[in-house]
Amino acid sequence: MKQAIGVIDSGVGGLTVAYELMRQLPKEKLIYVGDTARCPYGPRSKEEVQQFTWEMVNFLLARDIKMLVVACNTATAFTLDSLKKHLAIPVIGVIQPGARAAIKFTKNNSIGVIGTDGTIRSNAYTNALKNIKGELDICAKACPMFVPMVEQGIMEGSKAIQVVEEALRPMVEQTQMDTLILGCTHYPLLKSTIQSVVGEDVTLISSSEETARETSTILEMQHLLNHNGITPIHQFYTTGDLNMFMQISKRIFKEQNLQMITIEKAALHQMQDSK
Amino acid sequence: MKQAIGVIDSGVGGLTVAYELMRQLPKEKLIYVGDTARCPYGPRSKEEVQQFTWEMVNFLLARDIKMLVVACNTATAFTLDSLKKHLAIPVIGVIQPGARAAIKFTKNNSIGVIGTDGTIRSNAYTNALKNIKGELDICAKACPMFVPMVEQGIMEGSKAIQVVEEALRPMVEQTQMDTLILGCTHYPLLKSTIQSVVGEDVTLISSSEETARETSTILEMQHLLNHNGITPIHQFYTTGDLNMFMQISKRIFKEQNLQMITIEKAALHQMQDSK
Repeated sequence: MKQAIGVIDSGVGGLTVAYELMRQLPKEKLIYVGDTARCPYGPRSKEEVQQFTWEMVNFLLARDIKMLVVACNTATAFTLDSLKKHLAIPVIGVIQPGARAAIKFTKNNSIGVIGTDGTIRSNAYTNALKNIKGELDICAKACPMFVPMVEQGIMEGSKAIQVVEEALRPMVEQTQMDTLILGCTHYPLLKSTIQSVVGEDVTLISSSEETARETSTILEMQHLLNHNGITPIHQFYTTGDLNMFMQISKRIFKEQNLQMITIEKAALHQMQDSK
Repeated sequence: MKQAIGVIDSGVGGLTVAYELMRQLPKEKLIYVGDTARCPYGPRSKEEVQQFTWEMVNFLLARDIKMLVVACNTATAFTLDSLKKHLAIPVIGVIQPGARAAIKFTKNNSIGVIGTDGTIRSNAYTNALKNIKGELDICAKACPMFVPMVEQGIMEGSKAIQVVEEALRPMVEQTQMDTLILGCTHYPLLKSTIQSVVGEDVTLISSSEETARETSTILEMQHLLNHNGITPIHQFYTTGDLNMFMQISKRIFKEQNLQMITIEKAALHQMQDSK
C-alpha cells in the first residue's frame, strides 16, 4: 500500500497546511516539496506555474504518494483541474475546502475573502463559493503586503496591526461579513492580528486547517487511512536554501515536531510526457 | 445524471441534517425518508436496525439517488460499513464528520462526546476519533433525557437548563474538554442551552452541520454537484403520521423552506436480495 501524502507549495506557506495535516492526521506520513527557489508563483504566467507544479508532482509520484495536497493557492487556481484529470490518486487544493467551510459558518451569507493579487484576480474563491451557493454576498480583496510582512517575521505588534488595519478596515466598514476566508497559506500566521482588526464576531476560516480536515475526509472515503501504527518520519524537500527553510519550519512546527521531519534539497526535472 | 441526495433517519432527528444540506447545498435536491413509525432505533437489535435501514435505502435507490446520507447515529453505527461495501454511490454517516471536526477544533486534545445510550455504548465516536488520532483524551456520556425532551418541544428555558445541567455538569467539572461533539441529530436543537451550561470556551460540534459540509466535499470530489440551475423541490417521506412530521419540519426548516418541500407517506418493503 502507498504510504505518504504528498504536499506541494511554491515555498513555505504550505508548511501551515503540513502543520495542520500533522496535527489532524498524526498517523500519516508527509512528503513535502516547497519550490522556494522559484517562489513566489503569484506574478508568474499560468504556463510557468503549471510547468513548475507538474515538476513537483512528478518528483512526488516517483516517491509513491497515495494522495496529493496542493497547498498553494496560485497552483490550485491554475493546475487543480489538470491534476485531477491526469492523476489516478485523489487530489485536493486549498481553495474549495475554505469555500465550503465559509458556507458552513456564515449565518448572514456575507463572506469576505483575502488573498494574494493572483488569487483574488483569478476569482477562484468567488467561483468556488457561487458554484455551491448562488445567494452569497462576497467581498474579495487582495492584500499584497501580508506575505512579505510574514516572511520578514512580522506577525503581531503595532506594525502588523497597522498594515492589517489599513488593508481590512474598508472591508469591515463597508460589508456585513460575518465570515472571512484567509485565502493564502501564509495568513494563518497573522490570525490573531487579523482577528483583532475585524473583531471577535467575524469567523476566520483558515484554508490550511480546512484543507487538512478535508484530506482526512477523503482518505477515509477512499480507504487510504494509515493503520500500521508506526510513528511517521516526514520528509521535507526545498529547492532553495536549506537553512532558511529550517528556520521557518521551526517557527511553524514548534520544537517537538521537528524530530519527526527530515529536510533535504530537491532537484526538480521537468518530465513533459507525464503531463 | 442522477439528481438527488438521499437522506435516511429513524425519524425526525435527521431533519437537522436535511436543514443543513439545504442551507449549505441549496442547489441540491433531497429525498428524505424518516422511519417515524418505528422510531427510535436506539433500543433495537443490530439486525433489526440493519433491516429497517436497508428498507429505506432500497426505497431511495428506486428513486435514483446519487449519494446517500445516513442521518442517524444508530443506523450509522450498525450499517455504514455494509452500505459502503454494497452500494455503488458514495455513502456518508453522521459519526465520522463530527469526529474529524472535533479533531480540527480541539487545541488541548480533550474532547467530550454526548449521544443516546446506543450511540455511546457502540463506542462509534471513540473508535472514529482514535482511528485518526491516538493521543486524545475522550469523555463520552449518554444523555437519555435529551431526545424525549426535544420531542416534547422543550429546548430552552429553566426546565431544559436543569436537565442539561444535570447531565453535563460532571463532565465540565471532571474534564478539560475544549470541544464537545453533539453526537445525536436531535441535539443541535438544544445548542444554545448546552452552550450556556458548558460555557463559551467549549466549541460545540454539530454532527448535522459537519455531515452537510462533508457531503459537499464528496459531491465535488466525485463530480456530482448539481449545475442545472433549477431550484430543487425536496421530497420528504415519513412512515408515520404526516401531520406530526409536518409540525416538526416547520419548527426546524422555518417558513420559507417549506414551500420547497413535499411530504408524503412512505411504504417500505424489505427487499432481502438487495442486501
